[in-house]
Amino acid sequence: MTHTEYLWFNTKQRQEFVRITDEVRAIVQRSGVRDGMVLVSAMHITAAVYVNDWEDGLIHDFQEWLERLAPAGRPYRHHQTGEDNADAHLKRTLMGHQVMLPITNGDLDLGPWEQVFYAEFDGRRRKRVVVKVMGE
Amino acid sequence: MTHTEYLWFNTKQRQEFVRITDEVRAIVQRSGVRDGMVLVSAMHITAAVYVNDWEDGLIHDFQEWLERLAPAGRPYRHHQTGEDNADAHLKRTLMGHQVMLPITNGDLDLGPWEQVFYAEFDGRRRKRVVVKVMGE
Amino acid sequence: MTHTEYLWFNTKQRQEFVRITDEVRAIVQRSGVRDGMVLVSAMHITAAVYVNDWEDGLIHDFQEWLERLAPAGRPYRHHQTGEDNADAHLKRTLMGHQVMLPITNGDLDLGPWEQVFYAEFDGRRRKRVVVKVMGE
Repeated sequence: MTHTEYLWFNTKQRQEFVRITDEVRAIVQRSGVRDGMVLVSAMHITAAVYVNDWEDGLIHDFQEWLERLAPAGRPYRHHQTGEDNADAHLKRTLMGHQVMLPITNGDLDLGPWEQVFYAEFDGRRRKRVVVKVMGE
Repeated sequence: MTHTEYLWFNTKQRQEFVRITDEVRAIVQRSGVRDGMVLVSAMHITAAVYVNDWEDGLIHDFQEWLERLAPAGRPYRHHQTGEDNADAHLKRTLMGHQVMLPITNGDLDLGPWEQVFYAEFDGRRRKRVVVKVMGE
Repeated sequence: MTHTEYLWFNTKQRQEFVRITDEVRAIVQRSGVRDGMVLVSAMHITAAVYVNDWEDGLIHDFQEWLERLAPAGRPYRHHQTGEDNADAHLKRTLMGHQVMLPITNGDLDLGPWEQVFYAEFDGRRRKRVVVKVMGE
């Protein structure tokens, strides 16, 4: 059995981290799947989907850290196409662009601190995440 | 068909890399699934699950490299909550927190050098990994 | 329903990025699966599989960036075994070694710019990627 929905985002900031655990859980419950997995995957290549802590200080640390490892404003060759977002491609690569969450007893089977986030690195336009549930 | 088990860890060191290929293989065999996939995913957000070489030198290299890219002891904002493990959250992000392994002919379908590891970055307490088999 | 094929690579360069979206799509179509997921996973531990832009400038940026974060030619301990490819293990870790692609209506369900790549970091020998389709 499969069930597919899409989440849409249009962030106000160019970079923004959005918690989506509740939205994914609701999709799992609508799917009727009691045991299986759900794929949550960014469909745009300057955004990430990851699992980590729901704590603003840590999100700030992630953002500083990504800026240090994959800084904006460098003379990236990608920018010769007219783009200015090469760093966003690199940042999303560090965070990962998808997660697979286990479903047990009809609900997300997460550890005590696991939260799912959408991380936008080149926002202010409409973007999509696919959520596909598979199981029985 | 699905089958779910959990692996528990309580490492003696704060940082420790544990090979878990055999444990995952045993779960796959107990599941009875002949063809499908198995998700192996850390349920705690300062631990990783990854696939790479079973070679102590390389594991040492990974640890040095992670310390260079995501050092401990920085004035992370996450530490204002009383935590001291922000670097562990970053390190686990670099290594990845889950893998999906293919199952063919009732066994893990791995390349010649692929080994599955649990990487702990904030240990000395009980933590869990979910192993969910799905297939036929 | 499952369907498994393998892609073989033998790159001329030690480091090479190869677009494989069309090969994966063809496997999905041969599988007959209309809705589900396909796992695309490198079976060798110095290669990556990732999703990002099909733009040569960006691929150049990725390569420079990986060289900066995980440089070749360092005195890695792994090299005491006679190997000289520790950096390739690190680079593949940054890029990720597998992706799971959703299948909807019998085709890959990708965003407008999503392309699947095989990234080789220690080539000039035969290596394999497993492609496993699962669904209905």
